[in-house]
Amino acid sequence: MTVYNFSAGPAVLPKPVLEKAQAELVNYQGSEMSVMEMSHRSSLYDQIIKDAEQLLRELMAIPDNYKVLFLQGGASLQFSMIPLNLAVGKKALYVNTGAWAKKAISAAKAVAGVDVEVIASSEDQNFTYIPEITKEMIDQDAAYVHITTNETIGGIAFQTIPDVGDVPIVADMSSNILANDYNVEDFGLIYAGAQKNIGPSGVTVVIIREDLLNEEPIFSPMLDFAVQAANDSLYNTPPTYAIYIAKLVFEWLKELGGTQEILKQDRDKAQLLYDAIDASQLFKSPVNQADRSITNIPFITGDEALDKKFNQEALAQGFQNLKGHRSVGGMRASLYNAFPKEGVEALVAFMKKFEEENGER
Amino acid sequence: MTVYNFSAGPAVLPKPVLEKAQAELVNYQGSEMSVMEMSHRSSLYDQIIKDAEQLLRELMAIPDNYKVLFLQGGASLQFSMIPLNLAVGKKALYVNTGAWAKKAISAAKAVAGVDVEVIASSEDQNFTYIPEITKEMIDQDAAYVHITTNETIGGIAFQTIPDVGDVPIVADMSSNILANDYNVEDFGLIYAGAQKNIGPSGVTVVIIREDLLNEEPIFSPMLDFAVQAANDSLYNTPPTYAIYIAKLVFEWLKELGGTQEILKQDRDKAQLLYDAIDASQLFKSPVNQADRSITNIPFITGDEALDKKFNQEALAQGFQNLKGHRSVGGMRASLYNAFPKEGVEALVAFMKKFEEENGER
Repeated sequence: MTVYNFSAGPAVLPKPVLEKAQAELVNYQGSEMSVMEMSHRSSLYDQIIKDAEQLLRELMAIPDNYKVLFLQGGASLQFSMIPLNLAVGKKALYVNTGAWAKKAISAAKAVAGVDVEVIASSEDQNFTYIPEITKEMIDQDAAYVHITTNETIGGIAFQTIPDVGDVPIVADMSSNILANDYNVEDFGLIYAGAQKNIGPSGVTVVIIREDLLNEEPIFSPMLDFAVQAANDSLYNTPPTYAIYIAKLVFEWLKELGGTQEILKQDRDKAQLLYDAIDASQLFKSPVNQADRSITNIPFITGDEALDKKFNQEALAQGFQNLKGHRSVGGMRASLYNAFPKEGVEALVAFMKKFEEENGER
Repeated sequence: MTVYNFSAGPAVLPKPVLEKAQAELVNYQGSEMSVMEMSHRSSLYDQIIKDAEQLLRELMAIPDNYKVLFLQGGASLQFSMIPLNLAVGKKALYVNTGAWAKKAISAAKAVAGVDVEVIASSEDQNFTYIPEITKEMIDQDAAYVHITTNETIGGIAFQTIPDVGDVPIVADMSSNILANDYNVEDFGLIYAGAQKNIGPSGVTVVIIREDLLNEEPIFSPMLDFAVQAANDSLYNTPPTYAIYIAKLVFEWLKELGGTQEILKQDRDKAQLLYDAIDASQLFKSPVNQADRSITNIPFITGDEALDKKFNQEALAQGFQNLKGHRSVGGMRASLYNAFPKEGVEALVAFMKKFEEENGER
């Protein structure tokens, strides 16, 4: 049976990447060592982590005045590290667009000395839209404005990055990094857990404009952006194998034609599914059309029992991890870069068949 | 050329583990998914992390009143998390045995509200011995006594765990976990970066007695032992693939006969090298004989130029990562569980040949 993995993360990885990793797992390029066995200070590994950074710089067109860090702890640790490094004694502005934004807000409020203000929210409509942000809403003395560019659970995304004046935008880009046409220059700091569009879980990418690096040390060197930047992510042993897989993913993406090409493919895949939803009498998208995510696409029938039946039958057909998050219900298809178009086509065909069999409601 | 990897970490892994990981990298047990692609909330992955914990419990005979956590950030993040969780408003006692103990002490001092006291140190002799710890030295109101059971750089180890009364012992066991005959009951908390005796870098094992779990929340959920324990290490996405490799290593170790059997092998390997050093007129061990580590074995000629020559010739023969840490100089052989005895025999033979060729000094 062909398996299509719609997981929201950890998620499907490119097959050629997995096959390359498999081929060289025991013996990396004739070294007689696995990448997992290499000292992070060896010249062989140094080339891997440097290549990973360089490839990401190319793919995202990251300017020279930004540092690229490979850290640990996921977006969840960034929720605390960012206010701790950037906003103690200052105001930090947050946009509340869903489950992940809420976690970022809650963590920032728990950092002593940070004055957290939620400047906009779509909680009034269960996070089904992106609230409008205008420059007038922004206190220009704030340390930053935090946004979640794509809400993995709610399935909404910023289509453009708002103009907030000179205040740096800090963005949780975990679920649509390398699947957008944003400009890095429009952000002060971008962070992303790897386990959606980059690689295995256990590595977190942070892209930070150099002038935002803290001057005062943070109590823990591991939580200190300036320390991590000064050590090129090698303050301690980084998650070496996860970074190696990320490098292979970046190579795959570059070979494919880069971010513009994958974005075109991602949009095509998403359109296929949204068209099927819009044409259906049974399925509907719970989110505002203009704010639809292309990477995480929730859909519902409006009938919990029918959703459950769909999910059970889908699973039996090899559609894995389609069940929606409990806060939204229904189904959710995560269509990250490595998710094949054939999988969307198969899902759409299955949805049509299901609708025929289960009639109009 | 046969390569022997003496790296201090990330380090050599068991060949059967790498081969098994390779065989199932693209398709784990017929799931048509890589372990890297699995949702951490899927039943398939749940079995992997539960098995990893259960195997470690068996191998170390961990009592039921201890939690086993798989975290991120390495020992370096634990250096901050431990005082933050256990010692704010209290005294924390530290034993200074070398480079890693010093880092732990420095990080604890930077945590606000922790009264750090170094109760013993071997810095007077460049950390070549383990200082004696007696119960009389221990303030019984202290939150804990921190020791580094094995100093990866200095090459000294606690042969027995000191009696400190009712104060919990907190131990950095990164470089000799699963290579000792300590009793878990003698510790309040044990922590270890995985990249020596457990698996790839990027996962940190914490074994904590339940009564030591903090009651007051820590500002960051990711840094909060109680939160991590309440969520069985799944508060956020854990480093799933690294935990899977750790599980394979634990299976390998269990099949081999468990910790007692590997300890016997480790002692044999170390003895082979120490015997060669002791019999040599050229090489010597810089550390106190009674405190010798069996996992990290530094040795020197006393002549920097000769050390350099040895390292160059050794590297050319396939002995990788033998160069000693700059703070000790000379050579260092890290002989973790997965390091093969043949590698020690080959090194000893090479040392004899080198000594013959380079004469008595």
